[in-house]
Amino acid sequence: MPNKSRFLRVPVEPFAVTPDLAAGEMLARMEKISFQGRNLATARRIWEKMLGDDCTIFLGMAGALSAGGMRLVVAYLLEHRYVDCLVSTGANLYHDLHETRGRHHYVGSPRENDAALQADHIDRVYDTYASEDEFVDNDEWIAAFVMTLDRRPYTSREFLYRLGEHLWKETGRHGILTAAYRASVPIFCPAISDSSIGMGLSQARHRDSAAGLIDVIGDIIESANLVIRHPRTASVVLGGGTPKNFINQASVQAEFYDDRVGGHRYALQIVTDVPHFGGASGSSLEEAQSWGKLATDAEQVTVHADVTVVLPLLVSALTASAEQTIGAREPHRFDLSGSPMSMDGRAFPQSRFEARGK
Amino acid sequence: MPNKSRFLRVPVEPFAVTPDLAAGEMLARMEKISFQGRNLATARRIWEKMLGDDCTIFLGMAGALSAGGMRLVVAYLLEHRYVDCLVSTGANLYHDLHETRGRHHYVGSPRENDAALQADHIDRVYDTYASEDEFVDNDEWIAAFVMTLDRRPYTSREFLYRLGEHLWKETGRHGILTAAYRASVPIFCPAISDSSIGMGLSQARHRDSAAGLIDVIGDIIESANLVIRHPRTASVVLGGGTPKNFINQASVQAEFYDDRVGGHRYALQIVTDVPHFGGASGSSLEEAQSWGKLATDAEQVTVHADVTVVLPLLVSALTASAEQTIGAREPHRFDLSGSPMSMDGRAFPQSRFEARGK
Amino acid sequence: MPNKSRFLRVPVEPFAVTPDLAAGEMLARMEKISFQGRNLATARRIWEKMLGDDCTIFLGMAGALSAGGMRLVVAYLLEHRYVDCLVSTGANLYHDLHETRGRHHYVGSPRENDAALQADHIDRVYDTYASEDEFVDNDEWIAAFVMTLDRRPYTSREFLYRLGEHLWKETGRHGILTAAYRASVPIFCPAISDSSIGMGLSQARHRDSAAGLIDVIGDIIESANLVIRHPRTASVVLGGGTPKNFINQASVQAEFYDDRVGGHRYALQIVTDVPHFGGASGSSLEEAQSWGKLATDAEQVTVHADVTVVLPLLVSALTASAEQTIGAREPHRFDLSGSPMSMDGRAFPQSRFEARGK
Amino acid sequence: MPNKSRFLRVPVEPFAVTPDLAAGEMLARMEKISFQGRNLATARRIWEKMLGDDCTIFLGMAGALSAGGMRLVVAYLLEHRYVDCLVSTGANLYHDLHETRGRHHYVGSPRENDAALQADHIDRVYDTYASEDEFVDNDEWIAAFVMTLDRRPYTSREFLYRLGEHLWKETGRHGILTAAYRASVPIFCPAISDSSIGMGLSQARHRDSAAGLIDVIGDIIESANLVIRHPRTASVVLGGGTPKNFINQASVQAEFYDDRVGGHRYALQIVTDVPHFGGASGSSLEEAQSWGKLATDAEQVTVHADVTVVLPLLVSALTASAEQTIGAREPHRFDLSGSPMSMDGRAFPQSRFEARGK
Repeated sequence: MPNKSRFLRVPVEPFAVTPDLAAGEMLARMEKISFQGRNLATARRIWEKMLGDDCTIFLGMAGALSAGGMRLVVAYLLEHRYVDCLVSTGANLYHDLHETRGRHHYVGSPRENDAALQADHIDRVYDTYASEDEFVDNDEWIAAFVMTLDRRPYTSREFLYRLGEHLWKETGRHGILTAAYRASVPIFCPAISDSSIGMGLSQARHRDSAAGLIDVIGDIIESANLVIRHPRTASVVLGGGTPKNFINQASVQAEFYDDRVGGHRYALQIVTDVPHFGGASGSSLEEAQSWGKLATDAEQVTVHADVTVVLPLLVSALTASAEQTIGAREPHRFDLSGSPMSMDGRAFPQSRFEARGK
Repeated sequence: MPNKSRFLRVPVEPFAVTPDLAAGEMLARMEKISFQGRNLATARRIWEKMLGDDCTIFLGMAGALSAGGMRLVVAYLLEHRYVDCLVSTGANLYHDLHETRGRHHYVGSPRENDAALQADHIDRVYDTYASEDEFVDNDEWIAAFVMTLDRRPYTSREFLYRLGEHLWKETGRHGILTAAYRASVPIFCPAISDSSIGMGLSQARHRDSAAGLIDVIGDIIESANLVIRHPRTASVVLGGGTPKNFINQASVQAEFYDDRVGGHRYALQIVTDVPHFGGASGSSLEEAQSWGKLATDAEQVTVHADVTVVLPLLVSALTASAEQTIGAREPHRFDLSGSPMSMDGRAFPQSRFEARGK
Repeated sequence: MPNKSRFLRVPVEPFAVTPDLAAGEMLARMEKISFQGRNLATARRIWEKMLGDDCTIFLGMAGALSAGGMRLVVAYLLEHRYVDCLVSTGANLYHDLHETRGRHHYVGSPRENDAALQADHIDRVYDTYASEDEFVDNDEWIAAFVMTLDRRPYTSREFLYRLGEHLWKETGRHGILTAAYRASVPIFCPAISDSSIGMGLSQARHRDSAAGLIDVIGDIIESANLVIRHPRTASVVLGGGTPKNFINQASVQAEFYDDRVGGHRYALQIVTDVPHFGGASGSSLEEAQSWGKLATDAEQVTVHADVTVVLPLLVSALTASAEQTIGAREPHRFDLSGSPMSMDGRAFPQSRFEARGK
Repeated sequence: MPNKSRFLRVPVEPFAVTPDLAAGEMLARMEKISFQGRNLATARRIWEKMLGDDCTIFLGMAGALSAGGMRLVVAYLLEHRYVDCLVSTGANLYHDLHETRGRHHYVGSPRENDAALQADHIDRVYDTYASEDEFVDNDEWIAAFVMTLDRRPYTSREFLYRLGEHLWKETGRHGILTAAYRASVPIFCPAISDSSIGMGLSQARHRDSAAGLIDVIGDIIESANLVIRHPRTASVVLGGGTPKNFINQASVQAEFYDDRVGGHRYALQIVTDVPHFGGASGSSLEEAQSWGKLATDAEQVTVHADVTVVLPLLVSALTASAEQTIGAREPHRFDLSGSPMSMDGRAFPQSRFEARGK
């Protein structure tokens, strides 16, 4: 066995146990193991590169992450600008609002009798409970807020900025919506009608037929303009769903109007779905390259894992090793108070793609 | 071993091979086997019960089912009123439109080089290809159609009815959108902005700032009114996603305004996601009962399988055994040409829930 | 769009509904759809090719397929020589024996209270029940049979042949073990000690320290000699597990002693595991090519599905379309009564690989 | 909302980010989140309880964990007696031997061309490579060692003890087999014939028909005697497979001979398989209670995750918080040099269950 194959270059290094190892070193040791452990370590490195490479970083968030205890991790990422734009399902924003309003989700069991829960007005999300009565109160709170808005269409982005503002002023509490408001990080919610936030909006409409109009098509334009204005982008996806596709769509739609756009430069996704059933949530990042959603030379990694198992470790490690990078980072500045929003001091055009090359 | 336990009542009967067995008998034999095979057989029986029990049946559709060859199965279900209302992702309607316009998806490989595909303008969906240039042409076709519409908000339901009408008049071809138009089956698309249909709408907006306004909040009201008008409902879910939740939300929102509503009476879902990661796509139907999305005494079954593997068999068997039931069925009549739509000759209220009990 | 890309050759053809469609035509229509539905249709074609191409076909069987109602499908495949050799987990053979002895598994529920089941001596396999008392009786029956055997090592292959013979003579009933006995199809059980058959063997040992000696290393030699004698092989794997690897190992071990062996020529697997966690059950057939377990030009397909959902359809279709091929097939003849077994009239060498080229 | 439901007792506490958080505190914070993150934190607590409660702890190990970089974690657990008995697949022991002999596995890619790998004699395990030539050399090394053994049946337990001894004496290197040898921790390998260790054994048999006889039925007796001798047991399962079932079988078989045995008192499993396909790898711990494999009041948890992603964190945290417990623990002492082995100074009976109550 004189000459080793070119394929045998970097040995797997078995993970060595050290009691109470810190997150940063843990992921450093996991870079040389295999399977999803290695992928998680790679995710940290790729995220660090995004931060050091003048990218606009999109964060997608699907699955019951807020109810499941991840909302302050996401808030931290927004506040410290580890990401620049959030795309979320409505449920995650609603469950965030629920806790920011001072209520709780509760530790439960996946094997409880659901008829008994229903009798007690308890809504179950796998192993987590919430009070339906408190949810009804949230819906009413949202409807009442919506009644204070102008009788005109709002993009989900503008609406959520106003919602975060209202929530912050009323509660002064930390969470996703309030952190995004305070850090001026835009939030898009493409499927807002498929959530209790949408239900609150519909209850305002019930009172006033001119209230509660959300312009989700306007969101497509604004999100694409974000890419056109600065075509160097990156994508961090938690859980798949509509946020994953919406982030990719922003790049595809932007490229239609500006040929400097060539797909995200970096991408990482943490998903539990698999590619072989054809759904978008589980689709591979290689597949995204065929569409031009991702540059063909992009650095990318997929971690096949439940977000609640890996995000605490990933972010604990990232915030350690990326400290200097994040200190040196000069993120784009957004002013979200207008319609349309502005970026680095210049507003996006009204109802138009910031067309350039095409 | 004299007295058998009460748990040992119905023996598993091993599946007996008969060459070229027909679908109906195949599922009949599968009722007494185990695991997902039994669940698939149960799904047929539950669907038959829905059809015989004066239910409004919602069909949810997520995952790349149209691109994957399932669009004429869905069109058949709409045309013959095996279901009464479709809730879909935008992608499934877009890929349907693509084929109805005479183009194709193509048999491909999941292991092709994606950079080569991108160079050839080929978009890949796992093992299936499509021409990006044809997609761009679809987007333009949609944008041109949108320009012909009134400059007012359309619910996705009304918009998709008009789109189906236009598509039928231009092509005369069979598909989901055209079958829904001809059979007056409403289609809701809560996440329409997260799809190429949304991209087409945004391109119309780019030309005229008053064009392309989709009122997804109005969809919440109209879908809930469908339930309020006839609270006996059932749910058939293919693949999870926003359609699954939107169908359940319609019931929850309706119950808020009418206490005769008590959740779907029957439910079946075919999903590949699992419950234990907490996401809605994989959530169990038991969990739905805690929320009141599903009646606590509802008959329900989950089939853990890829839709493309089981739907052909399920529908081939159902259409055989339910022939008489479907012949006797008198489905609700919808008039979708108005805003709002009407059901059984009576229009839903404008921008309001058809509130009754609360 | 004048010239189509070379990637766009074969259009997806949407599945067209015909009530009560027969299995053969159903899979024929599924060849042009996508995802796992297409893979299932491809599996039928590849199995047909195996049958027409002078291959020794190995069938692997893991997961609770016998308890789950698949045992007569497997028995059919052995009896009609759709396969030539079975590799199984012990549990599948044990549950087959249980039913062949006239007992049953029972239709149950995955949500039953397991403490209540334990109190009633009911063993649960997901949604299927069995009587623990009947299982204890089986163990004793096996132990008593073992006591009648010679006090010498038996390969699992020889032992299972004798067990099938005894079972046939006592019951005259159809099943996997009895069909294999009658059709002289060898069965290997590499993990026999991890099953209730192993427990029965250990109970014989408890009575006589010279009883119950199974020579699983001898199985490696005999299975490799099967490949060496006729290096053209194929693999049909249901569920992964030890059978999947053992079938591949037979080819790898054979190649070590005979360089005419070059991996299976055809392979199909129906698995629910996925490749990205690194386990053998979910490993891809491409990966198998790196090891030489599978020829690099082999025709192969993976169907990601529960076996109980797809095997009835696959076999119902195969037995229709392959009727002529199976009629013309001249399978290898085994005499399993000896130690070692013989193939086509010639015994394998005793305790040796039938070494040739190396 | 005056009185809270009894279901709403323990609030979910969102995970708070601290840069470079240590493992122990990370899992402490994860106890109050949801889904698999919470389950992982629970796994640490349950393992701690096992350690403090005079249990014999079985560790099961399946999937390519040694090749994937987990072998020194397992070796640590054996050396420091976080577990008392290992049940493993053959591949994990073989890959451990490979590295202990000074060779490596290598960081690779799941998308490499497998024909190119085969041409270079590289075997791929998902994203990890190994040299086939080095593997062939291992097989020969094992065969040569087997030739030095007595010409009598060895249980896999005794054989692996001798193999570990030989490996330690030749290499002096740390690994699973050598740590088990030095710490006198028994290893069982029920499916040894389905592995390259089995292949090495078969190659010794090829040279001498009396060599390489492994008595896997004897393993059943010895593993059950471990439980009979001290019926308080616990189970830690990594990845499912034959080890998972074999550990449970030991308890079931023991109970048959001694009615003081009542199933494991604690159980944790880290698996990627799911229950609903009926296979043993994914089966729930509730299901295990119906069989009596697990006491009905046992503390148990399932973590649905890839072992490589969670084991480093779990063990890093456990070894911190359980330091005192492990210091106070007085594990059972095994002497593995005999046939049969002895426990706490007293040998197990020869070829018999240590029957007592029945």
